[in-house]
Amino acid sequence: MADIEVDYCVVGAGFAGLTAALRLKQAGQSVALVEARDRIGGRTSTEVREDGSWIDRGGAWIGPGQDRIYALMDEFGVKSYKQYTDGEAMMVVDGKQYRYKGTIPLTMSPWAAANLGAVFVELGEMCKTIPLDAPWEAKKAAKWDSISLAKWLGDNTLSTPAHDLLETAIAGCYTSAASEVSMLFVLYQMASGGGPSFVLGVKDAAEDARPVGGMGAVYRPMAAEIGDALHLSQPVRDIAQDGDGVTVRSADLAVRARRAIVAVPLAIASQIVYEPLLPMDRSFLHQRMPSGAVMKIAVLYDEPFWRAAGLSGQSAAPDSPATITIDASTDTGRPGVLCVIVEGPIARKLGTLQEGERRKAVLAELTARFGNKAASPVDYIEQNWSIERYSGGGMLSHAPTGVLTQFGRALRKPCGRVHWAGTESSAVMCGWVDGAIRSGERAAREVTERDGVLSPARAQ
Amino acid sequence: MADIEVDYCVVGAGFAGLTAALRLKQAGQSVALVEARDRIGGRTSTEVREDGSWIDRGGAWIGPGQDRIYALMDEFGVKSYKQYTDGEAMMVVDGKQYRYKGTIPLTMSPWAAANLGAVFVELGEMCKTIPLDAPWEAKKAAKWDSISLAKWLGDNTLSTPAHDLLETAIAGCYTSAASEVSMLFVLYQMASGGGPSFVLGVKDAAEDARPVGGMGAVYRPMAAEIGDALHLSQPVRDIAQDGDGVTVRSADLAVRARRAIVAVPLAIASQIVYEPLLPMDRSFLHQRMPSGAVMKIAVLYDEPFWRAAGLSGQSAAPDSPATITIDASTDTGRPGVLCVIVEGPIARKLGTLQEGERRKAVLAELTARFGNKAASPVDYIEQNWSIERYSGGGMLSHAPTGVLTQFGRALRKPCGRVHWAGTESSAVMCGWVDGAIRSGERAAREVTERDGVLSPARAQ
Repeated sequence: MADIEVDYCVVGAGFAGLTAALRLKQAGQSVALVEARDRIGGRTSTEVREDGSWIDRGGAWIGPGQDRIYALMDEFGVKSYKQYTDGEAMMVVDGKQYRYKGTIPLTMSPWAAANLGAVFVELGEMCKTIPLDAPWEAKKAAKWDSISLAKWLGDNTLSTPAHDLLETAIAGCYTSAASEVSMLFVLYQMASGGGPSFVLGVKDAAEDARPVGGMGAVYRPMAAEIGDALHLSQPVRDIAQDGDGVTVRSADLAVRARRAIVAVPLAIASQIVYEPLLPMDRSFLHQRMPSGAVMKIAVLYDEPFWRAAGLSGQSAAPDSPATITIDASTDTGRPGVLCVIVEGPIARKLGTLQEGERRKAVLAELTARFGNKAASPVDYIEQNWSIERYSGGGMLSHAPTGVLTQFGRALRKPCGRVHWAGTESSAVMCGWVDGAIRSGERAAREVTERDGVLSPARAQ
Repeated sequence: MADIEVDYCVVGAGFAGLTAALRLKQAGQSVALVEARDRIGGRTSTEVREDGSWIDRGGAWIGPGQDRIYALMDEFGVKSYKQYTDGEAMMVVDGKQYRYKGTIPLTMSPWAAANLGAVFVELGEMCKTIPLDAPWEAKKAAKWDSISLAKWLGDNTLSTPAHDLLETAIAGCYTSAASEVSMLFVLYQMASGGGPSFVLGVKDAAEDARPVGGMGAVYRPMAAEIGDALHLSQPVRDIAQDGDGVTVRSADLAVRARRAIVAVPLAIASQIVYEPLLPMDRSFLHQRMPSGAVMKIAVLYDEPFWRAAGLSGQSAAPDSPATITIDASTDTGRPGVLCVIVEGPIARKLGTLQEGERRKAVLAELTARFGNKAASPVDYIEQNWSIERYSGGGMLSHAPTGVLTQFGRALRKPCGRVHWAGTESSAVMCGWVDGAIRSGERAAREVTERDGVLSPARAQ
């Protein structure tokens, strides 16, 4: 049993935990960063290939308003490049392909397009009424938290194609069925990113750009600066706190610190044993914010051949084994990468297939959508977040009905010497990497302020 | 590290686990029953007092249709006695007391009473459409699983007092706010007990009778027959399975068996580490069926003085620190016990008070309701299930919206050599002790049938 004594112990080396540890170290504090996996990055994971290109197996995109990840990239000299958005996107509804530009496929029936547009406007207006710091205090919080996204969409989207597209797109953000997610949570999460156009858009929105080198180009230098304070392959089993400090234990590591910052998804935080028990509402919150199902598949070609055909690579097809595609090529465009994202119920269904069957189904869809060249990729890389032990699923923990109004107040509130980070605890950009970074900086400020030590210099 | 080899390992010594272990032993199989707590009974817990009287700190009542607990009581010679229901029940709405008989307080405004009656009829009709074995296949499953109980009640109960009473009574069953619980789950759980009149009723319904001696009079002889196969104070940390069997480990016990039966609430099952990972939908289910908040307070008097005043002791007062009361005296009526049950949001609020303040608040309510004698109990015994580490809350795990339709199929389905019991996995009397017993008998049959050994003799 190794014993380490530090000022602060951070649990989880995703972006939230890495940021908290980094900011604390920069403020002159000693830290231990304890990670269950044998790698850093959490719900991001960048694979660097032999040719120097990279695949982001998890979170990958950044956009305007995400100032804290841009600041971090500046700090480490990581450049960004714009998402490829030239050419047309594609919707596939009932087997029929509709090409379009912008966020709303106006080439669909006027009725469907008008319906989609109206729902966007309505969602935007609803988002404006949500206080980001306290969504449970929104005027209609009780009403919206009593219904699921499925119910709201059913009542407000009368065109079937518009309904199905919106359901795929919005529920997909929570990697869940629309019936699983509280409408209040949807509005809160959308509002935390600036509204529906940001969440569901690409250009000038949530998928506007990417770090050159992928997310790994950002998290690797962070880890380098944290140095040997990082302890991999140490799943934390229990956190005990007393009047003087906390003891964080894995099977073969015990860290004693003034305070702990737990920076993992809610469902993972629930698997840690806390001594004494956490306050009731935090324990209950841990039981109530599940992760969803998501599979991300990178299909590699010598070049992004779809571009020559006037296609952006972006497509959406509800209920298809390639529900969403997006051009995920590097800044050089070599290789050409089509990223297939499958979420919620279809991801669960697809996850039960044999790998060969799944590949066949996905490539058939891509071929129907992008032509014969799609049938012969040079590589095919799958990442099924649903079966990652230390994610518990993907992408962000969502709140079912009733949870935000009843337990939302516990999201950020420290429990004695145990503090909380993770993108779900961020009022701004909740669910994105940027939100994770914000939560790490907030938690670092929180612990140093409580202890009366200097606030981390770079955490404004 | 002790090592035990048995035919079957059962995790959790509540009624489900006790029953499974008992039936397996009776069928000639060797078992180990591993329990986290230093006591048996799970979400039931009977305190025997010096004078031989008893207090049921958890589940206590039985009713018609609950054949399996009656069979178990027969087996061990435990008699039952009828719940005291003479005299009038009381509703308190906006500070005004309404006395009544039967299930519906017809002394309230005719409009409220008619509204209550209509909702009961409607709920009963809806329950009839639910296939108990597969509620996700109900014709309107998708619709009802997209809204919470709060939404349905809001739309269908236009009288405010009727609404508030129903919300207290129904949401209370799930020890949650009405916004947290899926309407489909409400209907399923009600239907599993025979409909709303059973769930919400007392006489000839869910609180018709009690075992003489309390639930402990049933679970103690079960444990005696199980004998030294019972291992207390052994929180299970992980369950590993391979082609030949399972290994169930606590900190200082390792049990090797052909199969394991996990008989704990879903939120507790989620804290066990499974190797290999459970199938996706079962892992997700563990993240999605939380326990609720409930506090049970036994207030003891020399005699049940309310009876002489023509009161049954049964009362309901939404939002009161004594939300529900019921006469919980023993069969001799000495001492007189008023059982106060506080559920959901009020239980959480009450749980944050100091014990003295809480007692004061509760006794003030009882005094206003039952007169001055209520102010001076001879004893006052609190049980806060919300802070029980190995319950994770009370009373039954509920399903938020979307969960039954998406993940309900995983409720009973064995995961290789890991089988599931617990009242939540019972299609009949789901949520009651009787459902727990049924689930234990079903799991015992399941494992022996899979292994081709004789089915437990007494588990029909």
